[in-house]
Amino acid sequence: MEKKRKDKNLVVQKYGGSSVADRRSIERVAERVISSAKRGKKIIVVVSAMGKSTDELISLAKKINPEPSDREMDMLVSTGEQISCSLLAMSIHKRGFGAVSFTGPQVGIITDTYHTQAKILKIETERIRQQLENKTIVIVAGFQGISTALEITTLGRGGSDLSAVALAVALGAETCEIYTDVEGIYTADPRKISDANKLSFISYDEMLELASAGAQVMHTRAVEVAKKFNVRLHVRSSFSKKEGTLIMGQTPLIEETVVRGITLTENEAKITICDVPDKPGIAAFVFDKLAKIGVNIDMIVQNVSRRKMTDISFTVSNKNLNKTIKKTEEIAAKIKAGKVNSNKNIAKILVVGIGMKSHSGVAARCFSVLAKNKINIDMISTSEISISCIVNKNIGKKALAVLHAEFGLGKGRRKKRER
Amino acid sequence: MEKKRKDKNLVVQKYGGSSVADRRSIERVAERVISSAKRGKKIIVVVSAMGKSTDELISLAKKINPEPSDREMDMLVSTGEQISCSLLAMSIHKRGFGAVSFTGPQVGIITDTYHTQAKILKIETERIRQQLENKTIVIVAGFQGISTALEITTLGRGGSDLSAVALAVALGAETCEIYTDVEGIYTADPRKISDANKLSFISYDEMLELASAGAQVMHTRAVEVAKKFNVRLHVRSSFSKKEGTLIMGQTPLIEETVVRGITLTENEAKITICDVPDKPGIAAFVFDKLAKIGVNIDMIVQNVSRRKMTDISFTVSNKNLNKTIKKTEEIAAKIKAGKVNSNKNIAKILVVGIGMKSHSGVAARCFSVLAKNKINIDMISTSEISISCIVNKNIGKKALAVLHAEFGLGKGRRKKRER
Repeated sequence: MEKKRKDKNLVVQKYGGSSVADRRSIERVAERVISSAKRGKKIIVVVSAMGKSTDELISLAKKINPEPSDREMDMLVSTGEQISCSLLAMSIHKRGFGAVSFTGPQVGIITDTYHTQAKILKIETERIRQQLENKTIVIVAGFQGISTALEITTLGRGGSDLSAVALAVALGAETCEIYTDVEGIYTADPRKISDANKLSFISYDEMLELASAGAQVMHTRAVEVAKKFNVRLHVRSSFSKKEGTLIMGQTPLIEETVVRGITLTENEAKITICDVPDKPGIAAFVFDKLAKIGVNIDMIVQNVSRRKMTDISFTVSNKNLNKTIKKTEEIAAKIKAGKVNSNKNIAKILVVGIGMKSHSGVAARCFSVLAKNKINIDMISTSEISISCIVNKNIGKKALAVLHAEFGLGKGRRKKRER
Repeated sequence: MEKKRKDKNLVVQKYGGSSVADRRSIERVAERVISSAKRGKKIIVVVSAMGKSTDELISLAKKINPEPSDREMDMLVSTGEQISCSLLAMSIHKRGFGAVSFTGPQVGIITDTYHTQAKILKIETERIRQQLENKTIVIVAGFQGISTALEITTLGRGGSDLSAVALAVALGAETCEIYTDVEGIYTADPRKISDANKLSFISYDEMLELASAGAQVMHTRAVEVAKKFNVRLHVRSSFSKKEGTLIMGQTPLIEETVVRGITLTENEAKITICDVPDKPGIAAFVFDKLAKIGVNIDMIVQNVSRRKMTDISFTVSNKNLNKTIKKTEEIAAKIKAGKVNSNKNIAKILVVGIGMKSHSGVAARCFSVLAKNKINIDMISTSEISISCIVNKNIGKKALAVLHAEFGLGKGRRKKRER
């Protein structure tokens, strides 16, 4: 995809499954879209499948064949978005506005041939541009495209976000609005921290860190593409008129806010390979073998070696723990390492803030507030803009709370930091 | 479409909505398809949407917009067949056979641009042939195609039958098997005549007469195409192994059977325009105006005129009666005719048999057996191979029964007429 000159009058709006879950929701979306059209905007709407309809199709498929082919799964699940986009078009027509729905293949969202997790290669914009010129609202089925082999493909998790961002890039929209069932990005999960604060702005890099740690609002792939092509994302609720969170390159007031968000992840386990011979290429060997069984490794920590031996620790999702332990034990035997330990009793705290680049001592401040509260840290790893700590699971929520307070992220202090 | 040389090893099988209504049904179809594949056949399967799923989508759409656009309806309802064909492919894979599903647009079923009632213009066979050469079972979503304007279209009532017959023509299959929830074509509706007899053979023309009179098994358009390109149709049940009814050009034993089937239609009403001035073009004017309000006129009777006046009678489906009366009254005023009468209390008996062409006196035999049973005939019209009579609704079933017996169509006399 090439960078285009931005068209300020063009907006891409993406509505997730919860925003089009039933007839009433579809009608609410229609009204929302029309209110943007009345303000003179040219609008492209990207929709997900209705509510849980995709899950229902997958469940039916798995009853018929527990290991359905990826190609046929794409044929099957791509119908969900086709249904919601045609219904939305009808709802807009009912209100007297022009609209037309397109499937991914129809509109020319060209992907590679990796079914169920295809990557977008390019988007043909001709058909959309024609409709926009006629002042017609264009509705595109999210999550899907057509492969270079002319097969229907889907884009994997977060696929509709990706469709929306890629369309914004291809058509030169300045902003891509992501409508969801939460009001934006928060300093911490509001279900865990009652005074968590909605952010007005966040940078792409901060959002990428938060999304990787399981903030479900946006998938990393869409944020990466938005960053690469400098498309501003506006994450907001389809159930309210409030402004949400802008995800962008240069955020205002960035100097004042060292930490932007903190996440707590409680569904991971830690695995340690003890006494690994410290030779070049060992880590590569270990994680290459693990990648082949298809598990996502999260945090990896390897400390300096003593007596030509080291320990390698990493975390994985609990649901992949058993098969990962099994594979890790095979690997340990091959590389003549010691025994393999695992621990499900952990929580991961991730502290994110682009301000860390210019503010020293953030890590020290994290560790000392945890120490002051008698919270022991089991593993640490850091990046330029984030600090991850593993602690005991039973004190995970406490660790989240004390850090959230320490960096002044609660509502009480909002006025000081942001308008 | 051009005539092709027939491939005896190639078979098209079409399964209707009731044959793929749920998981178990889909699995039964998979086994049926595989058993044909094991006999060395190259197979193209055409499927309808699962059970009532299309009706459910239409009902949801009408709640959102009581008058949805035809284009968006096609986007919406075409998903039904896409779902059933991918699930069938998965079910065949599970059993260790190769299969691939295609949408109508994917496979190149090219139609005109009349949404919800498109006509097939041509079928590109390249993709199907490639798969058949690899011994892969090809599954095609019925009822749909892609228009010359690159839009998704659907083929209207009986559309999946039409897809199947058109594919049989395009690929040169000798037979097209139509799987449904009845065992074939009967001498009369078995729910109305208990000793109705399944026919082993019926000619295209006889089937066309029966289908027009509401025998729901096959739609006339598919039979017309089969006749034009001489594709043998085999209508049979997907729930049993029994042979069904072959629909073909030259049926065996045709000399012996004068009447092949009798239908009773009870959901029509009769409208009469009295005292119509007998001038050239009057009938054309009347039925042209009626066609424009989209009602299907069935039987039309106009007798010779007396004193430059005549009466014109016709029948319409009860559900269109009110709007047809209203329009007919407008027309009557315009042409300076007399009053318009209507009567819902009628039944139509249709007697069909290609043998009528060579046997004289069939009509007389009909009328006299009805007279002998004190059944008064209100209107009569005939074609080369059929006789239609309108009688009072309360004696419709009796008229059906006495005619069915008179022409020896009951099970008791089966052995005499057919092996």
